[in-house]
Amino acid sequence: MKIHNFSAGPGILPPEVLRKASESALNYNNTGLSLLEMSHRSPEFEQVMANARSLAKELLNLGDEYEAIFLQGGASLQFYMVPLNLLKSKAAYVNTGNWASEAIAEARKVGNVEVIASSEDRKFVYIPSEFDMPKDADYVHITSNNTIYGTQWKSFPQTDIPLVCDMSSDIFSRKIPADQFSLIYAGAQKNMGPAGTTLVVFRKDILGKAGRTLPKMLDYELQYKKDSMFNTPPVFSVYVSMLTMQWIKDNGGIEWIEALNNLKAQFFYDELDSNPLFEGTVDKASRSYMNATFILKNKAIEKDFESMLKQEGISGLKGHRSVGGYRCSMYNALPLESIKVLTNVMREFAHKFA
Amino acid sequence: MKIHNFSAGPGILPPEVLRKASESALNYNNTGLSLLEMSHRSPEFEQVMANARSLAKELLNLGDEYEAIFLQGGASLQFYMVPLNLLKSKAAYVNTGNWASEAIAEARKVGNVEVIASSEDRKFVYIPSEFDMPKDADYVHITSNNTIYGTQWKSFPQTDIPLVCDMSSDIFSRKIPADQFSLIYAGAQKNMGPAGTTLVVFRKDILGKAGRTLPKMLDYELQYKKDSMFNTPPVFSVYVSMLTMQWIKDNGGIEWIEALNNLKAQFFYDELDSNPLFEGTVDKASRSYMNATFILKNKAIEKDFESMLKQEGISGLKGHRSVGGYRCSMYNALPLESIKVLTNVMREFAHKFA
Repeated sequence: MKIHNFSAGPGILPPEVLRKASESALNYNNTGLSLLEMSHRSPEFEQVMANARSLAKELLNLGDEYEAIFLQGGASLQFYMVPLNLLKSKAAYVNTGNWASEAIAEARKVGNVEVIASSEDRKFVYIPSEFDMPKDADYVHITSNNTIYGTQWKSFPQTDIPLVCDMSSDIFSRKIPADQFSLIYAGAQKNMGPAGTTLVVFRKDILGKAGRTLPKMLDYELQYKKDSMFNTPPVFSVYVSMLTMQWIKDNGGIEWIEALNNLKAQFFYDELDSNPLFEGTVDKASRSYMNATFILKNKAIEKDFESMLKQEGISGLKGHRSVGGYRCSMYNALPLESIKVLTNVMREFAHKFA
Repeated sequence: MKIHNFSAGPGILPPEVLRKASESALNYNNTGLSLLEMSHRSPEFEQVMANARSLAKELLNLGDEYEAIFLQGGASLQFYMVPLNLLKSKAAYVNTGNWASEAIAEARKVGNVEVIASSEDRKFVYIPSEFDMPKDADYVHITSNNTIYGTQWKSFPQTDIPLVCDMSSDIFSRKIPADQFSLIYAGAQKNMGPAGTTLVVFRKDILGKAGRTLPKMLDYELQYKKDSMFNTPPVFSVYVSMLTMQWIKDNGGIEWIEALNNLKAQFFYDELDSNPLFEGTVDKASRSYMNATFILKNKAIEKDFESMLKQEGISGLKGHRSVGGYRCSMYNALPLESIKVLTNVMREFAHKFA
């Protein structure tokens, strides 16, 4: 049976990428060796790393003043590395949910943090739009998409202060003015590849100002000066991320994927808004095009809905354990077909139970 | 052509493991999903993580007072995490080479470090045997095998002070008294799996004494309390590591692999010692059974030797760029056959050039 993979992360990857990954796990480009057992100092892998770094910048349309590196530890380690590398006197954070809160908590272990806006008052169902930018912060930190609550920034704050963004769940999903940001980080496992690597892209001129001695592994400057290979990188995760970025490029780039993602989101939200049994859980203006969160108004028929989902091969639609309900994750590699299968199930379910 | 993979790391993995990894990258256990796109919270992956943690303890013959977790960042991040979690007043280190020196440098960023023994006086060609154990250190740190210089501890210091060991390059390669150690860490990419994950095994009672506020991602206690899934773990690297540990267990466990490794090392060193053209670079008593370092006495015929290696499909024999020469890495998955092919080349080369 065809499985429709709505997992919120690690999320769906393109079939072509998986086929190539599977091949390379046995025999990488006819070298007679698996990529899993090849030295990271081999010319083959050095090329993979160089391609991955270059594709990341290309898809973000960034120039030579930026560097892209692939680290380990997920966005969660970035919550600590960002302030460690950038925070000197004060950092400003916008709190839009669980991951932003985690980022704030880790930054407070490093230095002075001001929360300049928050949507906690209404359980994170919106993106704050009116707030004052500080004049004296070392950087402002935002989270572009909230996988758990299902909200997403539609436009980004204009500010002279370095803007830092956790883009783990919507990197490479839409055209963004990347050069408005001083640093962007993203765990790979939603739109970029499998778990195990984290992309960090930054303007070189923001480094070296925090004035602290850094552990080598947590030092952006050292990592980029060593070409993202200070120590053994997560070879296979970087490789599969490279394949996924190449897949975006080969199919038409960010314009192509954004159009596809818009179509998928429109399809889904149209059904959600017209279906009498379901209800979206966040403000319409803040709806995420990556993770649509919703509930069944009548909890008594949840089991029936879930059994229909299962029959159609729909996997991973459960909401995050901290909030419940449902979550339709529509990452880059999810085909429109899967959305159609889901919306058909929702329609059919309404015919039966409305 | 059959490739004989002597890479010093990431190193060779068993063919059965690679076949299964390749399958799972397409369709994991007939779920219809690739393991690369499956949620780490799926029952399937939770089982993988539980198996991996349990196999690690089983192969080390450790009981309930120990925990095994799989982190990211390689041994290089452990160089910093160990002192961050354990160093209160003073730590003692033995300096046996490049990696030990790196560990010392990172520990000094955290607190007071005493180097209690070193083999730097003779460029790390031996393991120090006579030195005094401190009475007042929080822990003593050693590096069981030195991949670059090719030395290995044959027995371990007896001490009441918690013993910490970087076993990145010889974990699971021989029977060791693991319960003599309070903490063992190992990057996966030599004897345990592919790059991208690091095993950390520790006695639970050594934690919580350093008295500092830890970043969440660098806190052993938090990581084990969250069952090694505080955040998204490096799914595929943990999975392939689990397969490799299972491969050791299924073939006869540590006794089996130790006997095989002893045989391989004996075969290689016998040839090295009897061949007039080559010379080992470290003291015989300290020779590593994982990485045998050697040189050609006559540098003028290196190209001839290397061209013969290439003809026989021997890959990865070059010494580390910092020391030169040759290095025969004989990790667990390297078959005896590959050693025979190499020693045959060495013998044939001596017939031609001696």
